[in-house]
Amino acid sequence: MKILVLNSGSSSIKYQLFEMPEQHVICSGLIERIGLEMGAVHYTSETNNVEEATEIKDHKAGLEKVVDLLLDKKTGVLHSTDEIKAVGHRVVHGGSTFTNTTEVTQDVKDKIKELFSLAPQHNPANLEGIQVAESIFNKAKQVAVFDTAFHQSIPIKAYKYAIPNKFLEQEKIRLYGFHGTSHKYVSEKAIAYLQKERTKIITIHLGNGCSITAIKDGQSIDHSLGFGPVTGLIMGSRSGDIDHTLIFYLVNTLGYSINDVNTMLQKESGMLGLTGFSDLRDIEAAAENGDTNCQLALEMNAYRIQKYIGSYVAAMNGLDAIVFTAGIGENSELVRKLVCTNMETFGIELDEVKNNVRAKQITEIHKESSKVKVLVIPTNEELEIAKQTYQLL
Amino acid sequence: MKILVLNSGSSSIKYQLFEMPEQHVICSGLIERIGLEMGAVHYTSETNNVEEATEIKDHKAGLEKVVDLLLDKKTGVLHSTDEIKAVGHRVVHGGSTFTNTTEVTQDVKDKIKELFSLAPQHNPANLEGIQVAESIFNKAKQVAVFDTAFHQSIPIKAYKYAIPNKFLEQEKIRLYGFHGTSHKYVSEKAIAYLQKERTKIITIHLGNGCSITAIKDGQSIDHSLGFGPVTGLIMGSRSGDIDHTLIFYLVNTLGYSINDVNTMLQKESGMLGLTGFSDLRDIEAAAENGDTNCQLALEMNAYRIQKYIGSYVAAMNGLDAIVFTAGIGENSELVRKLVCTNMETFGIELDEVKNNVRAKQITEIHKESSKVKVLVIPTNEELEIAKQTYQLL
Repeated sequence: MKILVLNSGSSSIKYQLFEMPEQHVICSGLIERIGLEMGAVHYTSETNNVEEATEIKDHKAGLEKVVDLLLDKKTGVLHSTDEIKAVGHRVVHGGSTFTNTTEVTQDVKDKIKELFSLAPQHNPANLEGIQVAESIFNKAKQVAVFDTAFHQSIPIKAYKYAIPNKFLEQEKIRLYGFHGTSHKYVSEKAIAYLQKERTKIITIHLGNGCSITAIKDGQSIDHSLGFGPVTGLIMGSRSGDIDHTLIFYLVNTLGYSINDVNTMLQKESGMLGLTGFSDLRDIEAAAENGDTNCQLALEMNAYRIQKYIGSYVAAMNGLDAIVFTAGIGENSELVRKLVCTNMETFGIELDEVKNNVRAKQITEIHKESSKVKVLVIPTNEELEIAKQTYQLL
Repeated sequence: MKILVLNSGSSSIKYQLFEMPEQHVICSGLIERIGLEMGAVHYTSETNNVEEATEIKDHKAGLEKVVDLLLDKKTGVLHSTDEIKAVGHRVVHGGSTFTNTTEVTQDVKDKIKELFSLAPQHNPANLEGIQVAESIFNKAKQVAVFDTAFHQSIPIKAYKYAIPNKFLEQEKIRLYGFHGTSHKYVSEKAIAYLQKERTKIITIHLGNGCSITAIKDGQSIDHSLGFGPVTGLIMGSRSGDIDHTLIFYLVNTLGYSINDVNTMLQKESGMLGLTGFSDLRDIEAAAENGDTNCQLALEMNAYRIQKYIGSYVAAMNGLDAIVFTAGIGENSELVRKLVCTNMETFGIELDEVKNNVRAKQITEIHKESSKVKVLVIPTNEELEIAKQTYQLL
């Protein structure tokens, strides 16, 4: 069965076409700079690679471009769009409404819309993608897979903030969590690998966005991103945890506007704010060459992750494995090394030789004597969306 | 040597007169509601107890009232104010300037003033107390003891926030920490008790304000209060850690004013916001009677402390002892029990019989098999200030 996976952003659409349940990737690509003067279409199948610069006026025009490529005599992989039986959509925010992957109905679309205010940068684009796909692939089932759904098992003692109750009850302000599709995907791989009935796992997703999840017996029980996708670990340009009193100080005492502070914390902070670089490879290279800001940023980043590991060991009263995933987690030997140094108290012992890896598959990087398994597992959110879409149908 | 300890607030002065180095309390008391229509003076010596309701127009008038009582033929303990050789002042914020207790000079006063913007509710009153004491006890040395000083050993990887560097360099925005006098006092007691050369201790100060400190070999290396005294643990009316994005959501989407949000997080949150009660004894009683909000608040409170314990075990790569102190820490059997439940992974095992205590002195409450010692140690910030003042002279 052919399943198309779409990840629609405000000015881009990532897509991947799968043959399921074989998990075979038929083709994949990206449409970017939608609505701007000059957009681009990228398309890769087993035999063809297309790069095209062209104006793409909206999401519909973008998706029609993809359809042209899918059906094209030279580059194509389909005879008819009807061969696509389902489209799996990434939807960032499912609020407290969606605890599972769900088939799209009018009611589902209305509810995704109600959640716009909680994810103003994501949900509108996600819904746009669904609507465009409905019009183009009108014989296919449309399925929504929510980033927040995996975290709906988090208990109230962990998702509630210590502010007046009305903010949870009336305004739904609580920890929702994000990157759920990735954490679910790698934790299931890890659990299968551990071959244990009951498991206590910490998954560490380190990409441009970063988050960490405590997963007990396969269920998310705590997570570092909260109401918005900004808290917890230090990210590419997002601050992670701060003392929120600095917001009031910047506005009331130093005269910043609240919107400037918000922008600063989301776009000018994190590794970028600490080093001037947004790409970790640049930071690692500069640190190697003696840049003290870069050295400190790497230390701070690792220290933050270590403290979260400790706090989730407390949350689960134990630990079987930690899992590194996503761009940085899969590829940065140095970040993994810094995180696993001086962590013997938890039974974490890194094997520095095994750690010298850019993992393409599940890889052990701990010493034989390590009580806790340290794993690198490449994430694949698109495949997870395809799997969940297939399972639902 | 007679040393007077003063803790000056915006409308109150707490005082205690010590004979040092014997650590003997000669008298103690409180002046409250300074500047309001009707104030009050409390005074307790070994033989007398005075309660007086009267107007106290300013700090100077308040301190003069105390002098009258100290010298009074009936209630007094002194022949002349000259017997007081030193006055030790609590000063909340020492910024990055003061790493140690220091004798007050004009330069020191200027620097305390420069720090007003970092502690607008505390430092002005602290300085007022110093100036009044200088005029009344003009033969005594004036000594400033800073709440933040003990935390100046925290390394930069722990005190810096992941925001653009200029905010640390130019605006001095960083973790300062508070309750340092209390954490120092009880950690020194704990270290003496452990009789170990190298120690890894976590001190948990649970009063109306709450904080937790990682103390390695006697030095504070991390702490839960940050730039302001609001983050970390859930407090009486302060939120502790939140997702700061909710501030932007409340202001930009729901239309709250930024000052209302600040007030809400400082005065209407924490245990009060979760339960409607500000006194822990009321919360415990209601929870006992089935109030689910109170039960949840107690769980959230303990869970937050547990996660901080875990994160500080990571920070120190080990743990020898945890110490409960201050009003709640010394007196709440239930809070200690909840914190120490399901923490065997760290080697923490509570003895429920020993835990049935309102500690007046250092008390062990762990099982014999517990690898980590669990101690209750009454704090005494006034005595610590007297000790540091005496040591300086």
